[in-house]
Amino acid sequence: MTLVEQIHDVGRRARAASRKLATLSSVRKNAILQAMAEGLEDGAEAILRANAEDVAAAEANGLSSASVDRLRLDEKRISEMARGIRDVSVLPDPVGEVLADWARPNGIEIRKVRVPIGVIGIIYESRPNVTSDAAVLCLKTGNATILRGGSEAFHSNTAIVQALQKSGAKAGLPADAIQLIPTTDREAVSVMAKMDSFVDLLIPRGGHALIERVVSEARMPVIKHFHGVCHLYVDADSDADMAIRIAENGKCQRPGVCNSLETVLVHESIAAEFLPRLAAALARVELRADEKAQSILGDRAKAATEESWTTEYLDYILSVKVVASLDEAVEHINHYGSHHSDVIVTRSESAAQRFLNEVDSATVYWNASTRFTDGGEFGFGAEIGISTDKLHARGPMGLPELTSYKYVIRGSGQIRE
Amino acid sequence: MTLVEQIHDVGRRARAASRKLATLSSVRKNAILQAMAEGLEDGAEAILRANAEDVAAAEANGLSSASVDRLRLDEKRISEMARGIRDVSVLPDPVGEVLADWARPNGIEIRKVRVPIGVIGIIYESRPNVTSDAAVLCLKTGNATILRGGSEAFHSNTAIVQALQKSGAKAGLPADAIQLIPTTDREAVSVMAKMDSFVDLLIPRGGHALIERVVSEARMPVIKHFHGVCHLYVDADSDADMAIRIAENGKCQRPGVCNSLETVLVHESIAAEFLPRLAAALARVELRADEKAQSILGDRAKAATEESWTTEYLDYILSVKVVASLDEAVEHINHYGSHHSDVIVTRSESAAQRFLNEVDSATVYWNASTRFTDGGEFGFGAEIGISTDKLHARGPMGLPELTSYKYVIRGSGQIRE
Repeated sequence: MTLVEQIHDVGRRARAASRKLATLSSVRKNAILQAMAEGLEDGAEAILRANAEDVAAAEANGLSSASVDRLRLDEKRISEMARGIRDVSVLPDPVGEVLADWARPNGIEIRKVRVPIGVIGIIYESRPNVTSDAAVLCLKTGNATILRGGSEAFHSNTAIVQALQKSGAKAGLPADAIQLIPTTDREAVSVMAKMDSFVDLLIPRGGHALIERVVSEARMPVIKHFHGVCHLYVDADSDADMAIRIAENGKCQRPGVCNSLETVLVHESIAAEFLPRLAAALARVELRADEKAQSILGDRAKAATEESWTTEYLDYILSVKVVASLDEAVEHINHYGSHHSDVIVTRSESAAQRFLNEVDSATVYWNASTRFTDGGEFGFGAEIGISTDKLHARGPMGLPELTSYKYVIRGSGQIRE
Repeated sequence: MTLVEQIHDVGRRARAASRKLATLSSVRKNAILQAMAEGLEDGAEAILRANAEDVAAAEANGLSSASVDRLRLDEKRISEMARGIRDVSVLPDPVGEVLADWARPNGIEIRKVRVPIGVIGIIYESRPNVTSDAAVLCLKTGNATILRGGSEAFHSNTAIVQALQKSGAKAGLPADAIQLIPTTDREAVSVMAKMDSFVDLLIPRGGHALIERVVSEARMPVIKHFHGVCHLYVDADSDADMAIRIAENGKCQRPGVCNSLETVLVHESIAAEFLPRLAAALARVELRADEKAQSILGDRAKAATEESWTTEYLDYILSVKVVASLDEAVEHINHYGSHHSDVIVTRSESAAQRFLNEVDSATVYWNASTRFTDGGEFGFGAEIGISTDKLHARGPMGLPELTSYKYVIRGSGQIRE
């Protein structure tokens, strides 16, 4: 088989599996999930063996120690994956939920019912645990999954999928419900992105180059888990202690994630007092400041460039800018931000209301840390990612975001006049 | 300006307008709509003059009389457009609706609120009235619109947009909220499809070639209003009179629309009795039958080919096939259909339930005509199209489908531990 035939074959089989998955009961799906959790634990030895192969190759290829660490599995990480599956198994199943229900004057009864999307393709570069997490969330919502992980984790991912398939099958998992693209050929991503007859949705998770490639090549809908350039705006009338606490939490609690802060905007009327306190509180953070902020911060800050305002540092670096008004802050955020998560700290309800209305981001905050943009923190129980798109799903995506709907209409012979 | 600069300029201005539109009150938007309805009527003369130019050119270029008729406007059609605007103005505004609202144990309060999508691009080939209909639905939901109509209607569309802009501006319509691509250059579609920084959603309405082009070029989400290959399955235990009534309504009431029937599947146990009655009732309809159906229908039917099963005739032609079981019917529909609208006629609740569950279409019917797949018939009050996609919107799209949502979070200084 050529590469195209090979990937299309995966797609065709996923489509067939999706028809079967759509009719599985919640009880059956949960039993499969329980079996799969056990299967992962039972298969730990084989998974760790495969993982050791990947780790050895990564070290031989000179990957950074941080990358190798992300790749490495151990008993504990496998237990966590299994626990994740069990957690999902006890969540409510969104499939079958009646979203709306009404009758028309002619007597037909219309029901809008949640159904699975069908086949979901996940393209990711990150830790091998995504393999299990993504497959399990898709299965819970009745979707077939086609997984395409990073080539450096190929053996680990293969072993994980085999363990899930084998244990799931015994509990009634349809064949081909969870498939891994069986090659590390880079072209496979392009073939996936073009086969919209077999894949209903692509979710890319990874760096800029991967996302850019998927967005430009895909024929089917794409939901991006893209970067987060998140802002804190400290308003004129605000609690400085609170603002510093939220800045510190946003920047330092976990700098490497998308909901961490990258820019602080400060109203000019409080800048002279606030900025030195901020600089002192964020002692380990490098500051990159606009001219006005730098005139206050002196040597403590480097000069920001135009690029600073759009950069997701994911590091102990923070852009700082003095603004003349709430309007300027909103405009800056809408222009330079990534429409992910942004916060205003203010005592003024009217300023907050304007900020919450006018900032065009998935999640907007008044007096709380942007670090709460997370499926778990929202109480969703599970998260497949955080959408930076506006269509279908925006912000943290839980189980309902992995479903579509259909209209089910019951009549007694009605025709249109 | 080059073409790219020209289209990007349209996009940039639409983005700026969208920020203003998002903050307009429902009262203001409705006042603008009322003013625009009046503006269309007042501008009727100029619109008809521009339209006469298009019609003359179309006739000179030898367009079919059906196409010229679709293009032609008159006083009555303009009144209908104006009435359409007034109808939309009195519909409830979905923007601002609180979709969900909950508090977390740490005290933050999360609200999921409907917001406009932003900038919507509409690419269409059809009647000039789409110009007004689409712009108005987008405006009602707080979105800026970039319209790209067919080149044969360019003067008509320009005159309509000018009338809407001018009258709307007097009532507070932000500049650039409704723009028409100011060129008939075919390349403009490609430029639009690539400028995802300025356009959040593309809705193509037109023939196969247009949709194919948009799907393969677009970087932003696309919601397709695609073809409808709709099926009627007549089950073993069914009311033959009802089945014939639904077949006749589906095929003959308006054959040129996407929710009309293209294929009838009949259970083998009733085929010998049912098919001759169907053929008699659909006297003016050409039948294309599989071997079994042809053996019953004789000369009344032509032989169907593999192509017949995927063809949207939009004409007095119907594919007919005998199936051995409900399973075969479901499989045929899922394989050959367009996932638009499909109906089972049966007395059996269990057969109906299986059909409604297993047929993977936007709208599935039990004992009612597929012709009801329509925003008006659903009671939506307005319709921008019928989505044959599964993401964001599926089936008839009303006003809520032209919105996104954001999470609005209020706290009192909470940070993540």
